[in-house]
Amino acid sequence: MSDLGVAFKKSEDFSEWYTQVVLKSGLADYAPIKGCMVFRELSYAIWEKIQEIFNEKIKKTGHRNVYFPLFIPESFLKKEAEHFAGFVPEVAWVTMGGDTPLEEKLAIRPTSETIIYATFAKWIRSWRDLPIKVNQWCSVVRWETKATKLFLRTREFLWQEGHTAHATEEESHKEVMEILNEYRDLMENYLAIPVIVGRKTENEKFAGALYTTTLEAIMPDGKALQMGTSHNLGQNFSKVFDIKFIGEDEKEHYVWQTSWGISTRVIGALVMVHGDDKGLVLPPKIAPVQAVIIPIPYKDADADRIVAKAKEIHEKLQKAGIAATLDDRMEYTPGWKFNDWELKGVPVRVEIGPRDLKNGQVTLARRDTFEKKQVKEEEATNAVLKLLDEIQKNLFNKAKKFLEEKITVVKNYEEFKEVLKEKGGFIKASWCLSPQCEEKIKEETGATIRLIPFEKEKPVSNCIYCGGEAKELAYFAKSY
Amino acid sequence: MSDLGVAFKKSEDFSEWYTQVVLKSGLADYAPIKGCMVFRELSYAIWEKIQEIFNEKIKKTGHRNVYFPLFIPESFLKKEAEHFAGFVPEVAWVTMGGDTPLEEKLAIRPTSETIIYATFAKWIRSWRDLPIKVNQWCSVVRWETKATKLFLRTREFLWQEGHTAHATEEESHKEVMEILNEYRDLMENYLAIPVIVGRKTENEKFAGALYTTTLEAIMPDGKALQMGTSHNLGQNFSKVFDIKFIGEDEKEHYVWQTSWGISTRVIGALVMVHGDDKGLVLPPKIAPVQAVIIPIPYKDADADRIVAKAKEIHEKLQKAGIAATLDDRMEYTPGWKFNDWELKGVPVRVEIGPRDLKNGQVTLARRDTFEKKQVKEEEATNAVLKLLDEIQKNLFNKAKKFLEEKITVVKNYEEFKEVLKEKGGFIKASWCLSPQCEEKIKEETGATIRLIPFEKEKPVSNCIYCGGEAKELAYFAKSY
Repeated sequence: MSDLGVAFKKSEDFSEWYTQVVLKSGLADYAPIKGCMVFRELSYAIWEKIQEIFNEKIKKTGHRNVYFPLFIPESFLKKEAEHFAGFVPEVAWVTMGGDTPLEEKLAIRPTSETIIYATFAKWIRSWRDLPIKVNQWCSVVRWETKATKLFLRTREFLWQEGHTAHATEEESHKEVMEILNEYRDLMENYLAIPVIVGRKTENEKFAGALYTTTLEAIMPDGKALQMGTSHNLGQNFSKVFDIKFIGEDEKEHYVWQTSWGISTRVIGALVMVHGDDKGLVLPPKIAPVQAVIIPIPYKDADADRIVAKAKEIHEKLQKAGIAATLDDRMEYTPGWKFNDWELKGVPVRVEIGPRDLKNGQVTLARRDTFEKKQVKEEEATNAVLKLLDEIQKNLFNKAKKFLEEKITVVKNYEEFKEVLKEKGGFIKASWCLSPQCEEKIKEETGATIRLIPFEKEKPVSNCIYCGGEAKELAYFAKSY
Repeated sequence: MSDLGVAFKKSEDFSEWYTQVVLKSGLADYAPIKGCMVFRELSYAIWEKIQEIFNEKIKKTGHRNVYFPLFIPESFLKKEAEHFAGFVPEVAWVTMGGDTPLEEKLAIRPTSETIIYATFAKWIRSWRDLPIKVNQWCSVVRWETKATKLFLRTREFLWQEGHTAHATEEESHKEVMEILNEYRDLMENYLAIPVIVGRKTENEKFAGALYTTTLEAIMPDGKALQMGTSHNLGQNFSKVFDIKFIGEDEKEHYVWQTSWGISTRVIGALVMVHGDDKGLVLPPKIAPVQAVIIPIPYKDADADRIVAKAKEIHEKLQKAGIAATLDDRMEYTPGWKFNDWELKGVPVRVEIGPRDLKNGQVTLARRDTFEKKQVKEEEATNAVLKLLDEIQKNLFNKAKKFLEEKITVVKNYEEFKEVLKEKGGFIKASWCLSPQCEEKIKEETGATIRLIPFEKEKPVSNCIYCGGEAKELAYFAKSY
């Protein structure tokens, strides 16, 4: 499947390069149904790592995993008007059960606020029942009409969605920000993808939210990718779903709510940010296989001893907690295996050839820089651990440097358009807060406001569009 | 939510008892949409334990988790005629995307053979690509028209479905039996539910399979519950989906396939088999919380020291790998907490009261027998570990004894009907292999053949229905 390698260069045809890396590394495949994809074992294993990391985080802070139905009655979706308007154009509708038409058509969940909150209304009576903090890992469906892009735009994708209910606005705000911080930690310290964080504009916020916070990363082609969002829903949903509680003050109140999610599109970001012309490059902390051991037995008396030594090293690495794999298949050459594991992005390759055996050493090759070095056999475990750590840091630092280079401040619309065309990335520009200016810029250039930073940055000019007084320095970009 | 306890007795109104235990323990709830349910944190945590245990098993044997689309085009379902006929009456159909009618209606997966095998056809070329062994954890939809029974019959439920492709019939048979054994180990040694295993009849096999193997358990009301199935699909699907490979003999062959699954209905079995009038009783190996520590502080000088000691014990238990929880909530009384944790089925309760503190001891209460005993504080960890082990064994042994008592051999149809009515359980009866006799018995009594044991048991009479020569001793039962 992977014997041909990646036929496109990342720097030359980014889009084709991306698709080939995804397909040839065995991350994913197109499904035999329009707009859908298959998560093959490699991407699913990465997703399981993300689940493990994020579950640990949220369970520590008192969140619990649950599972709510896939189906949402149309009448539920309709209750919150903005929410309905935002999602209804891309809903897949179930209208038949067996050969019987349904009385009310059912949406396949595009997101689960409505079905979950209809249930919260039943569970919540008193302040003692609060907070409720649940999360579910599931698939969601949005009937996209644009062309499929694996991981980034498919009709079904996998995600987690957290949903909480609190007694006060303050608590709900705290929850939104805590989750945003957990996301940031996940993106930066595990996926090695630096992000900028901030608040969405009214135009760009989640349909039905009071406000939306976001994490945005930059891709090598200069386009932004939203890595996750954390919403304060205020009392918008509690008022329409009638989620009330008797407070300690013995009065009735509506709850304050949050919802937040990340999806399998972050795997697309992983590919784009770290990959190279040889294929995937996976950050060690998220790599299902961190090290592959490849014996290089020549047809001589040492062959068996080399394979035996490789097994020994494999066991040692596993004992040290390294996710190591031994590739002792005889039907493939070492060179073929090198390419294959490079394509799959495994961070460290451990080679054992006749000379290594003779010298009591192993050869380590790192995936990010292709550097090779020999270390004494007894130091192999520590050397691999150290390399994994270095690779993790190196990938982040490289991406961080790139992100920083891709932030440009502009003072007028001409400059804005030029930077957008020539360089891309995030463009910091002064804005008057008017949705009309925001809309016009989007129409004319394709760029949207990705976020307003939490720590207010001073405008550097008048509004780049209307010339009126600027209130914010906003981060614009074209995006996926 | 749980302050009222279970109002029905297991021995008096089994069905109402079951529903109350499920609802009041917080395992699950009805969803605000007909026929569907909400998996609340307790049942979802049990499901996560099952996932963890089963994932470890199948990953060791080279299976890999993946995720295939939720949608199956009608034309795929139709390819294997028996399969289509078996599933189409209960398919939920998506017919609209946004406001556009779809060209071809899409089934929400009732099971994924067809969508997965359409993809296998693309992946498999040579014997080197075999075996393929994948598994997915997902939800499936079957548009039931009967009344909902939580965990046992809902329109959507959670399951895992494994799908494999092999070069030879022998390998596929081996896979079917290995998985059946893994299921048996899961059911008996983790869920503490003894099962009988065997083969389904032609009438009862999976729609599209060559043969189906099954695990069946007995419930307290004498009805059987199918705990899982492992199918050999033969070449039925590979022929219609054209899944061929070039063998080592350089000739083209169709692959041999298996599929197998267990679902969240096993959680229903857990409730029914082990539960009592106080609520759930969870086997320690599957319990999300294995031990709860409850301080019993009186309003005196010792109160703080008792809570501090409870914390200390809690940490010690956690360090020993016990899933322990400290319930130091001040707004509830110890008595209320006892009831609540009993309702939730936690295997061991650790109490620390003033006398325990004074004597340097703790009081242990086991959920299965309600026995209480004091142990020295320094022996608490080992004592809890030992108790968990004993409870696990006791639950299994009790259930095993019950199962054995519920197997009856009969020699004629009168006896068959009488045992079915008076005692229920598995009835071993002689059968001539005719589907007509099987069908008639089902029509007249409601009992089906649950399985034919793998090790042939000698018929003890002529066929109980037609009086013709009997070929098998079959296990009949009414079932969920």
